[in-house]
Amino acid sequence: MNPTRIIIDTDPGVDDALTFLLALASPEIKLEALTTVRGNVTVEMATRNALSILEVANASHIPVAQGCSLPLVSELSVSGEAVHGQSGIGKATLPEPKSKVVAQHAIDSLIERIVAEPDEITLFTIGPMTNLALAIRKEPRIVSALKGLVIMGGAIRQGGNVTPLAEFNIHADPHAAHIVFHSGIPMTLIPLDVTYKCLLTSADVEQLNKIDSPIARFVSDATATYMDFYRRYEGFDGCALHDPLTLATIIAPELLTFEEHHVDVDISGGVSMGNTFADFMNVSKKPANMKVALDVRGREFVELFVERMESLCVRLSEAKHLPHHKRDSAVATDAPSHRPDAPSGE
Amino acid sequence: MNPTRIIIDTDPGVDDALTFLLALASPEIKLEALTTVRGNVTVEMATRNALSILEVANASHIPVAQGCSLPLVSELSVSGEAVHGQSGIGKATLPEPKSKVVAQHAIDSLIERIVAEPDEITLFTIGPMTNLALAIRKEPRIVSALKGLVIMGGAIRQGGNVTPLAEFNIHADPHAAHIVFHSGIPMTLIPLDVTYKCLLTSADVEQLNKIDSPIARFVSDATATYMDFYRRYEGFDGCALHDPLTLATIIAPELLTFEEHHVDVDISGGVSMGNTFADFMNVSKKPANMKVALDVRGREFVELFVERMESLCVRLSEAKHLPHHKRDSAVATDAPSHRPDAPSGE
Amino acid sequence: MNPTRIIIDTDPGVDDALTFLLALASPEIKLEALTTVRGNVTVEMATRNALSILEVANASHIPVAQGCSLPLVSELSVSGEAVHGQSGIGKATLPEPKSKVVAQHAIDSLIERIVAEPDEITLFTIGPMTNLALAIRKEPRIVSALKGLVIMGGAIRQGGNVTPLAEFNIHADPHAAHIVFHSGIPMTLIPLDVTYKCLLTSADVEQLNKIDSPIARFVSDATATYMDFYRRYEGFDGCALHDPLTLATIIAPELLTFEEHHVDVDISGGVSMGNTFADFMNVSKKPANMKVALDVRGREFVELFVERMESLCVRLSEAKHLPHHKRDSAVATDAPSHRPDAPSGE
Amino acid sequence: MNPTRIIIDTDPGVDDALTFLLALASPEIKLEALTTVRGNVTVEMATRNALSILEVANASHIPVAQGCSLPLVSELSVSGEAVHGQSGIGKATLPEPKSKVVAQHAIDSLIERIVAEPDEITLFTIGPMTNLALAIRKEPRIVSALKGLVIMGGAIRQGGNVTPLAEFNIHADPHAAHIVFHSGIPMTLIPLDVTYKCLLTSADVEQLNKIDSPIARFVSDATATYMDFYRRYEGFDGCALHDPLTLATIIAPELLTFEEHHVDVDISGGVSMGNTFADFMNVSKKPANMKVALDVRGREFVELFVERMESLCVRLSEAKHLPHHKRDSAVATDAPSHRPDAPSGE
Repeated sequence: MNPTRIIIDTDPGVDDALTFLLALASPEIKLEALTTVRGNVTVEMATRNALSILEVANASHIPVAQGCSLPLVSELSVSGEAVHGQSGIGKATLPEPKSKVVAQHAIDSLIERIVAEPDEITLFTIGPMTNLALAIRKEPRIVSALKGLVIMGGAIRQGGNVTPLAEFNIHADPHAAHIVFHSGIPMTLIPLDVTYKCLLTSADVEQLNKIDSPIARFVSDATATYMDFYRRYEGFDGCALHDPLTLATIIAPELLTFEEHHVDVDISGGVSMGNTFADFMNVSKKPANMKVALDVRGREFVELFVERMESLCVRLSEAKHLPHHKRDSAVATDAPSHRPDAPSGE
Repeated sequence: MNPTRIIIDTDPGVDDALTFLLALASPEIKLEALTTVRGNVTVEMATRNALSILEVANASHIPVAQGCSLPLVSELSVSGEAVHGQSGIGKATLPEPKSKVVAQHAIDSLIERIVAEPDEITLFTIGPMTNLALAIRKEPRIVSALKGLVIMGGAIRQGGNVTPLAEFNIHADPHAAHIVFHSGIPMTLIPLDVTYKCLLTSADVEQLNKIDSPIARFVSDATATYMDFYRRYEGFDGCALHDPLTLATIIAPELLTFEEHHVDVDISGGVSMGNTFADFMNVSKKPANMKVALDVRGREFVELFVERMESLCVRLSEAKHLPHHKRDSAVATDAPSHRPDAPSGE
Repeated sequence: MNPTRIIIDTDPGVDDALTFLLALASPEIKLEALTTVRGNVTVEMATRNALSILEVANASHIPVAQGCSLPLVSELSVSGEAVHGQSGIGKATLPEPKSKVVAQHAIDSLIERIVAEPDEITLFTIGPMTNLALAIRKEPRIVSALKGLVIMGGAIRQGGNVTPLAEFNIHADPHAAHIVFHSGIPMTLIPLDVTYKCLLTSADVEQLNKIDSPIARFVSDATATYMDFYRRYEGFDGCALHDPLTLATIIAPELLTFEEHHVDVDISGGVSMGNTFADFMNVSKKPANMKVALDVRGREFVELFVERMESLCVRLSEAKHLPHHKRDSAVATDAPSHRPDAPSGE
Repeated sequence: MNPTRIIIDTDPGVDDALTFLLALASPEIKLEALTTVRGNVTVEMATRNALSILEVANASHIPVAQGCSLPLVSELSVSGEAVHGQSGIGKATLPEPKSKVVAQHAIDSLIERIVAEPDEITLFTIGPMTNLALAIRKEPRIVSALKGLVIMGGAIRQGGNVTPLAEFNIHADPHAAHIVFHSGIPMTLIPLDVTYKCLLTSADVEQLNKIDSPIARFVSDATATYMDFYRRYEGFDGCALHDPLTLATIIAPELLTFEEHHVDVDISGGVSMGNTFADFMNVSKKPANMKVALDVRGREFVELFVERMESLCVRLSEAKHLPHHKRDSAVATDAPSHRPDAPSGE
């Protein structure tokens, strides 16, 4: 089977970075582009981080387009600095990227890539949905051209992590979420209900660091601030793999339990701003507009994540010893057939 | 131990009626008064039903005070007729009550009874909280005088049954709920999350009807419409014992799982009107304002309910054969010491 | 013609005090009771001020009933201290009142007095409408029993004085205003649009003080803080006779220009909380629910106010020289026929 | 002096069409482009109407770019059909346009034209502000590049014409208005307060029709439905020159009375959705963000409008008799120096 062709719209962000790495480590996935947005960090820093992380993973051939610097309508109200560190990637320090952002705006990049090949591209939004919302309003045909959309965002039965009712990505741009939820795109929601069950522990990070690899070191440095935050404020050891879990919809969907519901987002302001809610008893008689993940075998996902990171470390290390012109294909995340030298058992 | 002295504020309503009967059947409880309110039915019908049901249970000595005929601020928007039938008590027909409502308004009755004996009375609100809210604003001392408050209302992780976010009692008067939630009264919330797990089935009703008793017949007739509603709209056989479950906080608290949270209600209107939400991750840093029941061993509660109904049927039947002047004490639900002839094992 | 029988619901407050004095000075008005409410000051201080001011004006026979200490639903958010001084009556110092508040709660006092004599009493609310709102919900018959209701509150074309959209009395209890506006009582609204056109200047106060009278001194001391506030924050010399202007509906209605509109109040929270708005173009197709004063010949009203104060000073001074048992009737504000010795020309 | 270079963002619409004609008739104005948006009609019909009207006025050299087909966030809730007729231009029938819309999206057209020449272009939005709002979010530099922005929209002291509080253009896309109002662009608001004082009467239309001209006939046919609507629903003879009045800021600013205020728009939903409100008493202490027209010498503006229409009719008629290659410059709305053959006295 061909790998699923995806674009990730992102605001890296520690767990955004881990998501790119997981995508690159997964033969089921072909990562075609990144688009950046203001969220955990400014859009300029998000772009810089995206480029740098791709470089660390020898994946600079993947284009990065920069998007919106402000939420659609809301005031800038939250920043992810407490969780992700001032740079957005914890204590990790990455060299200034050599590769450049593409000239095209993320909105136009999304429109062009998705509309050009209808029913081919699955979009993953792991930050505020400003770019996609604007793309929908500028070019409504993007709605039917998308093969699918997987959203990290929201809190359904679980409470919010920014306000009692709202999760960070939705709260950072609730109006964008409203546009997307009402768009008609086939959607899957990965809310806090499941992501908080996928905790990468310090033991996991130590395990990974048995391999001497810049990737392993990056994961270790990047997650340190994040883990520290969770330890102090939420009282558990480990950091939630919020964004990487979205990729489980492709690489391990059997770990997730889905229900189909009509889910909406409150944009009226006040205490409910950004509340994502499912009509469980269908009192509104509206048809379901998305699949929502409401349970996950979290530990299994974390173990899969660590395995994939290990294999990525090994593969990159092998790539270094290849002649230069072969490196790109060696690390490309294409289907297994494209990577005959990929470690078995992946 | 002395029985818990309670007042029930109510809008009968089928499951309100079952709550009175369960209170009367339970030696742990001394039901001292009922106050009525607009909710499932008009306040006049609620009063009539309250008086009639007490008569059926030989408990006309319990005073009934009539309260508010309209929600505090909201428009009248929902009615319980579809669930509870036009009379509020399903297909049951009760004779016009002989006893009379007391002259005092429910608000003043609540204030007088509760403020007079601080820390003695526990209030159960099983309808919209209009009466209590007005009492709090008229006489703030009621807050510290109440021993406790148990509320049937809200939906926390569970969706609403009137709107996607709101449960009937809260939605019928969200502003009253807001006043109560912010009052400082020690509160316990019994939301849909637990009440929908307590389903009285037709088999249970049949079991009860093996006893030839007006109480058993009333339960059967009253729940018929209710069960029919649930069968058609929510696809299950049985009716949820929403209101009776509040009494489990006294007679079987071990069946319930509680968490302490800050719970608030949205009164800003729109889609979130009447949403009751817990700050599970304590992002608002507000102290808990109530205990919330989030799980229940539902079947055990239903079996307890049926047992209590059976014993009430037996006791009332025995009372009939007593000389007239002894009947009242025979059926009164006072402490066991008051009912030396009560069936053992209750 | 008989004088109009009125009750004033009030939170004195400088201009509340001036309203009592104007009522007492006006033969067209018979002031039958005061009820107090939290607003400019706490309800306890409002009650104390009401009693004291009545004493200064030799009108202690007028009963004062104390009402609600908190707004219906809103948080306490504004206080009138900046305008009215810490005591509520500016720099005026009044002796501790000798007369006592009545035992009855303001809510019950309003219900009893108004329902007992349908179509006789006109109520003036010159503070937050908490008392009236609760009275309506406790005893709906008060709606049809009231002869009329005159409200100082709101801002229609004019902006608000607490938020860009909300006036103090409405903002202090918007839910109470909502209940009242939707009640069906025949209402007249006196909004900021007209009250800010009625400025008592320091020249006016000096003119009044040519009479050596405790009333004149009280007006001077009471308005000093008020004027100082307006001078600093709103840039004009003089204090607006917000509350006294309500009485113009009886003593000089020809000075006011009214329109009939459907006026509503926003209670959804956020920036529009407490906004009072007229449907000028009748796009909602709802019938008018009140008369709204939208213009006033302000200077003429202020002159009338000063004249009435002068005559009250003179009358009270004359009363002192009467034998004790005649004093009360001499200062009572009954119809002229009751005060044969009243100064002519009033 | 050079004419003011403008772009009109528009949803024609009868009075939109009149605005193009007034711009073309005014030597003080150089109309450089039109961008279309969904509002009175669909965006496709808006584009067709824009092209057709330019053709009637011999101004097909002016480019038209098509913009958004839906409001930013709101549901489609109102349509201008009742006012503007099914075609958007009343009873006027215009031939299918020969000229074509440009390929570029209106958002990009606005960004490109405005950012390329900072401080040169004044934008007039006479429909919902969806296009400008998206342009601001896509390219924030448009904010400082705009010379000015004139908005037909809102109702300040005046009530709304769609809801009691909201005017059509704002209500049709309140979130877009919110983005624009908070953008920092130097703005002038032309609200209903002034536009309803500029009534084109049937006598005015008859006067204009003394000239035999397709322009005169178009004005007559286009305004017929509009006038009929006003006659039936708002009870006056004549149609309000809402959109054309925006151009008075250039051609006759002395007719308007402006105040500087902080003006905001409520986007919380419910009754206040789309309310535009000024902080007249500056209680929010926010600096003014726009100039608002609060009064106008309406009849003088209408007479100026009719005069300009007459001179346009004459000029176009003369142009017909010119050799073909000279026509364009004859009707172009450049500064007088560019039109040596323009009728004197204009």
